[in-house]
Amino acid sequence: MRDNGVTWDGRVTTDWDVALAKRAQRMTSSVIRETLKLMATPGMISLGGANPAPELFPIREFQEASQYVLEHAGAKALQYGVTEGYPPLKQFLLSKVHKYGVPAKEENMLIVNGSQQALDLIGKIFINPGDTVLTDRPTYLGAIQAWTAYEARFVTVPLDEDGTRVDLIEDILKREPVKFIYCLPNFHNPAGVTLSLERRQKLVDLAVRYGVFIIEDDPYGELRFVGEDITPIVVLHKENTIYLSTFSKTLAPGIRLGWIVAPAKIVAKFVQAKQGADLHTSTFVQMIAHDICQRGFLRQHVKRIRETYSERCTVMLSAMDKYFPSGLQWTRPQGGLFLWVTLPEGTDSVALLKVAVEEKVAFIPGTAFYSDGESGRNAFRLTFATAGPEMIEEGIRRLGKAIERQLART
Amino acid sequence: MRDNGVTWDGRVTTDWDVALAKRAQRMTSSVIRETLKLMATPGMISLGGANPAPELFPIREFQEASQYVLEHAGAKALQYGVTEGYPPLKQFLLSKVHKYGVPAKEENMLIVNGSQQALDLIGKIFINPGDTVLTDRPTYLGAIQAWTAYEARFVTVPLDEDGTRVDLIEDILKREPVKFIYCLPNFHNPAGVTLSLERRQKLVDLAVRYGVFIIEDDPYGELRFVGEDITPIVVLHKENTIYLSTFSKTLAPGIRLGWIVAPAKIVAKFVQAKQGADLHTSTFVQMIAHDICQRGFLRQHVKRIRETYSERCTVMLSAMDKYFPSGLQWTRPQGGLFLWVTLPEGTDSVALLKVAVEEKVAFIPGTAFYSDGESGRNAFRLTFATAGPEMIEEGIRRLGKAIERQLART
Repeated sequence: MRDNGVTWDGRVTTDWDVALAKRAQRMTSSVIRETLKLMATPGMISLGGANPAPELFPIREFQEASQYVLEHAGAKALQYGVTEGYPPLKQFLLSKVHKYGVPAKEENMLIVNGSQQALDLIGKIFINPGDTVLTDRPTYLGAIQAWTAYEARFVTVPLDEDGTRVDLIEDILKREPVKFIYCLPNFHNPAGVTLSLERRQKLVDLAVRYGVFIIEDDPYGELRFVGEDITPIVVLHKENTIYLSTFSKTLAPGIRLGWIVAPAKIVAKFVQAKQGADLHTSTFVQMIAHDICQRGFLRQHVKRIRETYSERCTVMLSAMDKYFPSGLQWTRPQGGLFLWVTLPEGTDSVALLKVAVEEKVAFIPGTAFYSDGESGRNAFRLTFATAGPEMIEEGIRRLGKAIERQLART
Repeated sequence: MRDNGVTWDGRVTTDWDVALAKRAQRMTSSVIRETLKLMATPGMISLGGANPAPELFPIREFQEASQYVLEHAGAKALQYGVTEGYPPLKQFLLSKVHKYGVPAKEENMLIVNGSQQALDLIGKIFINPGDTVLTDRPTYLGAIQAWTAYEARFVTVPLDEDGTRVDLIEDILKREPVKFIYCLPNFHNPAGVTLSLERRQKLVDLAVRYGVFIIEDDPYGELRFVGEDITPIVVLHKENTIYLSTFSKTLAPGIRLGWIVAPAKIVAKFVQAKQGADLHTSTFVQMIAHDICQRGFLRQHVKRIRETYSERCTVMLSAMDKYFPSGLQWTRPQGGLFLWVTLPEGTDSVALLKVAVEEKVAFIPGTAFYSDGESGRNAFRLTFATAGPEMIEEGIRRLGKAIERQLART
């Protein structure tokens, strides 16, 4: 009998390792999710993760909406729904998109289980094994995970304070076929930087010239603290852009609701892929979200989230000035949830995390956000969204201490 | 400018057709979902689809549970959760599995967005392009859809009144490598037949001898009208079986909740695949379902569903005896939601559907349940779950008329 890692004790005749598909052998567990487990010890201040501030969740509105939906349309909310998404919710979201100046219709939109599912469906309908996708480095680790499963090859360009180094893209497009360019223009996860309008224009020009499309991932766009909103890429060139957003940072992540805006024929393909993936997104959840939205609640609520995160960001930045040793650099976000800290060359943020956990503070090491799993060793991501101002101040104090201990070692 | 099927009128420079992955070119829309759209005309009696009886949905229990969960643990319900699933819900489901005699632990279970997502994750971690999977013919069309997207090759065996013709499987296993055997032992969708215990034993023996694992899809197992429950395959040989079930037919499909029971190392791989696919299943929905379950509501409720469907099945079978012309055959289900009708050789059920729609009754043509999209032309699936007894009687009367009209033509 082979043990083979099963916990039961019968006769295992399946060689499970051999049974796995090639793509499954490339899958690994998210560093973040593993780190988060480690963080669940008492007294730990977590500046890792991407959890929105739970005290801002609109619990009362969810209560009212759940009651209303179940009372007035319970049988519909609990029944199978169409793959495309609940039409009134789509209408609400389309009216938001129209305000940007994108004349999207119902056939241009699909509701998904959080924008992570959008990333998965993109992989599913576009990526052949070995296909090249162009991303920032660092980039959102959920995108790396989703597309690694479809055996994508990642080609990357660095970021600076104005976002993606668009000037480095043309050489890549000249050199090799690229399936698409993935970008997070607003308040980048993990880097906290924002792509300038000039670079958005240039990116669109390049995409058009080389016949490449753009995935614009915009989960945080509404959470700007300072300055003016910058035109989304989908507005600059909607025909070649697939736009993603989510309710995770505005309503709540626990409901798993996101959406895609794309050319109609691509949405039709996404719908086919989603039918096979999970039939449709929960009708119950979509109807509740719609009920909350149509009450006009969201605008005021998002303003409150924005103000809270803005204040926390300021607190974090001041605390870093105060407690961090010299030789470190960090980004100063105009919005969103994250900022990015760069340690002196040669400092290992994975080793630092161990020291930090001893000091009862946690972050996500930079390597999580690189498709090679190796780069970014001397960097890490912090979030200012989850903890309150006092905890942020104390967390940064502890982290400063941990960094000093770690620097003294190396 | 190419038109290229986008609805906007700008400069389209992406050749979207060329951009699609090879697997996406094989995806098509579900015949069922397209047929369902057609059915939404006034006065239509739908005996197609797989919608549970909406009047049985436990709306009041959902109201109570939503309130309770939001009031007592709102911040948790709306926050990100772990990919593995909400632990108390897993504990509840594990206790159900333990009653069958399977000593599964938390690491043997994953919560998914309906069992359709389980089928997708199975494809994702096991199927390389060109891999052979063995299914019944006909089989659940969601499985065909899910695995077609991963470029599976389908090898099939027919069914008879005792389920899968297991006696035909060994020749196939001798002849070629098979990745897994997919079966729906209880109240087969679409065929309405049940796999005998003897055949389950034989199937397990074959799987062991040839080192092939079994996917046991059991969405309807609790809905038995007559006779005794038959031991699930996972009980006969848990080490080589992946077991799937769902709340869709017991609580409600609109919440999209299902689960997988499998060897721990396979669950770990499913978890990695699900992280990339959608991070996790809605915490909100899982906590509500758990709250309903832990009130002990489910047992009584499932009994009521069973009695209702049993009565409707009897009504449908009597009506068929009364209204259907001679020369047709149909299955007599011991449970579930479906039965399968075979028309005289050469009769086209797709053409029949058009006549039936004129008579204001609808069903799903048999071709939907064959991986070649061609076989099953002279058969169709009926569900007795959705409509009430009087509508079933009237629907079968109309369908009898349509069949007579169609037979007179050919």
